[in-house]
Amino acid sequence: MFSGVIGRYKDFLPVSGSTPEVTLGEGGTPLVRSRSIGPMLGCEGLYFKLEGCNPTGSFKDRGMAMAIARALETGRERVICASTGNTSASAAAYGSRYGLETLVLVPAGEVALGKLAQAMAYGARILAVGGNFDDAFRTVMGLVDILDIELVNSLNPYRIQGQKTAAFEVVDDLGDAPDMLCVPVGNAGNITSYWLGFNEYAKAGLSRKLPRMMGFQASGSAPIALGRRVDNPETVATAIRIGNPANWESANRVRDESGGMIDMVADEEILSAYLRLAREEGVFCEPASAASVAGLMRLPDLGVEVKGKTAVCVLTGNGLKDPGTAESRALVEMEYVAPDLEAVASMLSVDAGGWR
Amino acid sequence: MFSGVIGRYKDFLPVSGSTPEVTLGEGGTPLVRSRSIGPMLGCEGLYFKLEGCNPTGSFKDRGMAMAIARALETGRERVICASTGNTSASAAAYGSRYGLETLVLVPAGEVALGKLAQAMAYGARILAVGGNFDDAFRTVMGLVDILDIELVNSLNPYRIQGQKTAAFEVVDDLGDAPDMLCVPVGNAGNITSYWLGFNEYAKAGLSRKLPRMMGFQASGSAPIALGRRVDNPETVATAIRIGNPANWESANRVRDESGGMIDMVADEEILSAYLRLAREEGVFCEPASAASVAGLMRLPDLGVEVKGKTAVCVLTGNGLKDPGTAESRALVEMEYVAPDLEAVASMLSVDAGGWR
Repeated sequence: MFSGVIGRYKDFLPVSGSTPEVTLGEGGTPLVRSRSIGPMLGCEGLYFKLEGCNPTGSFKDRGMAMAIARALETGRERVICASTGNTSASAAAYGSRYGLETLVLVPAGEVALGKLAQAMAYGARILAVGGNFDDAFRTVMGLVDILDIELVNSLNPYRIQGQKTAAFEVVDDLGDAPDMLCVPVGNAGNITSYWLGFNEYAKAGLSRKLPRMMGFQASGSAPIALGRRVDNPETVATAIRIGNPANWESANRVRDESGGMIDMVADEEILSAYLRLAREEGVFCEPASAASVAGLMRLPDLGVEVKGKTAVCVLTGNGLKDPGTAESRALVEMEYVAPDLEAVASMLSVDAGGWR
Repeated sequence: MFSGVIGRYKDFLPVSGSTPEVTLGEGGTPLVRSRSIGPMLGCEGLYFKLEGCNPTGSFKDRGMAMAIARALETGRERVICASTGNTSASAAAYGSRYGLETLVLVPAGEVALGKLAQAMAYGARILAVGGNFDDAFRTVMGLVDILDIELVNSLNPYRIQGQKTAAFEVVDDLGDAPDMLCVPVGNAGNITSYWLGFNEYAKAGLSRKLPRMMGFQASGSAPIALGRRVDNPETVATAIRIGNPANWESANRVRDESGGMIDMVADEEILSAYLRLAREEGVFCEPASAASVAGLMRLPDLGVEVKGKTAVCVLTGNGLKDPGTAESRALVEMEYVAPDLEAVASMLSVDAGGWR
């Protein structure tokens, strides 16, 4: 039978016989080999982890399965989170499936269209906060103190536990950990989770090496890279538009322990990687996801050798989450034509079996 | 290593040593057990096959991997299709990944937002035809006669071959075929493919029974159910808005051989099932996908026993493909509030640990 992350990796998760096996089919996402960017960089192998193939379209589902299992086990009836969109979609989906009332606080006007459509479809209660993610998050933390409600942001340790399963899958697919893992950094829960997963697998003898952890923020929203809180974060990569990450200290620890880095990439680099992924690799991710690839492409300039290395870039969310960015950046014009063979052939300048 | 459908099922596919193993991570999609609708109907087990978890968000990727492998093997440099959106997204993705120029003809004004965003992101050439799918399809068939180009609609037999792998996965997960399979019917390629897959697995001794094949069209676009071409098909389920299906005869054969049916469901039934899937099962699919569930829910009224049966509903595409329908139908209002604990607590009428 098809299993989610709890069923597949229960030996590595804090579950007991009484933990409900919550699943919506999360995990088991594709690891796809690069055909263009990897060869161009001279990588031994470059792979994309397509987390957008999770049931709500982002990596958040892995940790949400664990967090909801825990909420059910402890008898909670309500869950809450602040979100740039992906966490709220995931919380709303698992909440509706398991009969939990879901309250999400999102920054008004800063959440991509698809993510709002999801939270609405799943029937969450949505508060649009006049401020940014950090304001919404602070408000949520205040509410958690006065409500009988489960916090399902990545400060919830069960979220991190579920998310670490993505590292297990990378090792299961490659036969070992890669030389480096590149990941977008927003609230910094994901880089923390992957590092935990790689370490647990190595300790269990299931991998021989540990990767260098390479985290990338958007330059207009790069508190960890800059070493200071950003009060008004700005970036096209809305999923990582966070100025004061909850897992900041943990991200620094991961960077230091793994010999990695947390750096930043400009929006133009992100969008260039985003389009290149779609046009050359056939992978449509959300803009924030492409920060991992934009970061990888900067490494040679920063003096980090990628030639001959094995690298995995985590593509955290589905491009369909943010159709607006695709439409505005793709610069493709639809061509209108009558449903008539001659009209179409003429438009295509059909000549000797081809078109111009 | 992670494999796509060609790598996983090559023994059942028309591939040779010289066929390139084309993949974008398609297949291996979740089979998720119903928690609400199945128990309500008294099914022994009801499962949803989440084909929206494929890399471009629909089941089309399975067959496209095969069709593109074939196009490459025969030296084609260009591919073409008519599409209500999902086929064009898939063709554009695999086309870009494997360096094939992709030309898609879509009915102008009838394709869901996310699907157009995908084709644009992947860089396809998009002709918006002034007419419906059937007009676009007829034009494509004319072009195929005069251009050196590979047709990747489901008339391409390699598409059907790739798509049958979904039936293999259902049997692999359940240990046998279900008693019935419910599937939306548009161009009728998918019902044809599943039936082929179930038969091949049974012949190979990998399953003991064959399912009844239950296909459902939208009532405003139900040529097969009505037994006559529909000149102006109309339905909210844009993915199956097809009045003259290419695989019509094959669909009738599958119905008869399997002791199944091809029936129709009203748009209101489709939308009701669509919202119920999101609100009770945590599954957000596109409207056309929900026709399979709306159809299943009608069966008791049609005198078909579902109590005690095992059924699989194929949810063909991701809800993110069509965010507009979610927004307009979810009837959820976002509530705007300042990022202030007291303001939010007051809005929630926080009282004794809860809210109203």
